[in-house]
Amino acid sequence: MMFNNHNVRISPKASIGKNVRIGDNTIIFDNVVVEDNVTIAHSCTIGEPLNNYYSNPEYGNPPTVIGKGSLIRSHAIIYAGNRLGQFVSTGHRVTMRENNIIGEHSVIGTLSDLQGNVIIGKYCRLYSNVHIAALSVLGDFVALYPYVVMTNDPYPPSDDLIGGTIGDYTQVGTHSTLLSGVHIGQNCLIGALSIVSKAVPDFSLVMGEPAKVVMDVRNYV
Amino acid sequence: MMFNNHNVRISPKASIGKNVRIGDNTIIFDNVVVEDNVTIAHSCTIGEPLNNYYSNPEYGNPPTVIGKGSLIRSHAIIYAGNRLGQFVSTGHRVTMRENNIIGEHSVIGTLSDLQGNVIIGKYCRLYSNVHIAALSVLGDFVALYPYVVMTNDPYPPSDDLIGGTIGDYTQVGTHSTLLSGVHIGQNCLIGALSIVSKAVPDFSLVMGEPAKVVMDVRNYV
Amino acid sequence: MMFNNHNVRISPKASIGKNVRIGDNTIIFDNVVVEDNVTIAHSCTIGEPLNNYYSNPEYGNPPTVIGKGSLIRSHAIIYAGNRLGQFVSTGHRVTMRENNIIGEHSVIGTLSDLQGNVIIGKYCRLYSNVHIAALSVLGDFVALYPYVVMTNDPYPPSDDLIGGTIGDYTQVGTHSTLLSGVHIGQNCLIGALSIVSKAVPDFSLVMGEPAKVVMDVRNYV
Repeated sequence: MMFNNHNVRISPKASIGKNVRIGDNTIIFDNVVVEDNVTIAHSCTIGEPLNNYYSNPEYGNPPTVIGKGSLIRSHAIIYAGNRLGQFVSTGHRVTMRENNIIGEHSVIGTLSDLQGNVIIGKYCRLYSNVHIAALSVLGDFVALYPYVVMTNDPYPPSDDLIGGTIGDYTQVGTHSTLLSGVHIGQNCLIGALSIVSKAVPDFSLVMGEPAKVVMDVRNYV
Repeated sequence: MMFNNHNVRISPKASIGKNVRIGDNTIIFDNVVVEDNVTIAHSCTIGEPLNNYYSNPEYGNPPTVIGKGSLIRSHAIIYAGNRLGQFVSTGHRVTMRENNIIGEHSVIGTLSDLQGNVIIGKYCRLYSNVHIAALSVLGDFVALYPYVVMTNDPYPPSDDLIGGTIGDYTQVGTHSTLLSGVHIGQNCLIGALSIVSKAVPDFSLVMGEPAKVVMDVRNYV
Repeated sequence: MMFNNHNVRISPKASIGKNVRIGDNTIIFDNVVVEDNVTIAHSCTIGEPLNNYYSNPEYGNPPTVIGKGSLIRSHAIIYAGNRLGQFVSTGHRVTMRENNIIGEHSVIGTLSDLQGNVIIGKYCRLYSNVHIAALSVLGDFVALYPYVVMTNDPYPPSDDLIGGTIGDYTQVGTHSTLLSGVHIGQNCLIGALSIVSKAVPDFSLVMGEPAKVVMDVRNYV
């Protein structure tokens, strides 16, 4: 009942694979590649033009890839230049600025906001309303809970942006904020409402404002 | 000027009451019951199909009820299986996953996100951008301020989800986080940016990370 | 590729300047003035009717102004009564309730939520997902980072609302909450995840819950 080909707009310069479903009121712009077996729900925008589109009459839209088997839920805005691996899924109303790379089987939750040039590994899970500053890098199997924020500006407002990094299997609790350029190791647990202001070694349980190492998670029984 | 019957899509399996207004670009899916005197603004989705719709060709949409006199503001996404009492109102861009029950006269603010199987009593007020994990239960006259998060996973990521509960007349301040399975009593006040990690007795003023009881609100003069 | 005049709805009572672009699926209601050289992207709602529209058959929409050269990104909801100065720009999915005044060259980030009757000066920058309570006042060159909340209710829930104020050049860190009626001076820095509960003098660096003055920023070297 969702796929009636009603008010769907697909650029003739887009490429649509086999067995693809596209919901009503969805717009797909130039140079988007939708691979086989993808479902894009209704009211989505895929391949949203970058800022200079508004001012540059010579603008060409960078290529965008939605990997095979992916599911994009309704009201997503995915800019041009994003590359989603296979079997990625999103919640509703995600916003992905340009040039993010998202690994296979990762889940990007409702209302999450990727600010562009972000790298996310495989099998990650961003719950609802996660905000990832530009230039951030996540490993594989990373879990970020609602309202986690990664920042990238050490002396705001500046243009000297430094993304943070999060290692494989690390989980970050609700409302926690990671300051710019911070590296969090693998297999860490970051408590809710923490401010992470300096590097966190592998296997750390950290919490607080500023966050401190409380224990080695391998000692947690 | 808002109700021009333009690009409105209503399933023939939906039931629309008397004196109902439905805004432009709104979609109403199968088995939605819109009771009398309801207003649904433009660009809403009511009765959004559940996840297995995408894979199950035999899928049937569960029933959804929008109670009489309710007002759904624009860009809402309300999944199938929700049951809204009479005179419920919502802000813009709310997301309600499946099978929530919302009591009469409750208000669900702009950008709020109910994760499904949530029970909300009568005359509650969720301000903007409140995130309620699945299985949470709210009493009557509960007020949650912006960016409050209720969680439900004691050992994330797990499937052993336990919703929290909040008693009648309790208010929870901005950005506070309630850990999974916590019970907050009636007539409590929870300060902003608190982490509530254990049960809170009736009539408590609590705050902090982790939140502690500061006083009995009946002694507040 | 974005401006195809497809499913665009413009009230005959709206005024559209020269060299204006309006994206697909956008709705412009009565008494909106779009000045010259404005770009409004797709799926926006400009001049959204106020609450009494739903019940008052005599309702007239208050005037709305989108200043010249402004850029409104997609999925914005801007109520009637807003007055945006020249060269204002917004991210995606902003929500502006009625009667805000926004100074020239200010930027309102993705998912930000202005609750109405807010005054924002010139050259301000609200990053993503900032929530500004009604009656708040910001000076010029103010920067608010993601998930900052300004509140306005000293004894919630009440109707005795008092907006807060923020002076010129002040910056407020991620997730910080400003309690109702608080005045923050000019040239201040407010740390992430702070609760600001009382007045902050000019040139203060403050942080914590509740926030305390840590140093004079003029001594920061």
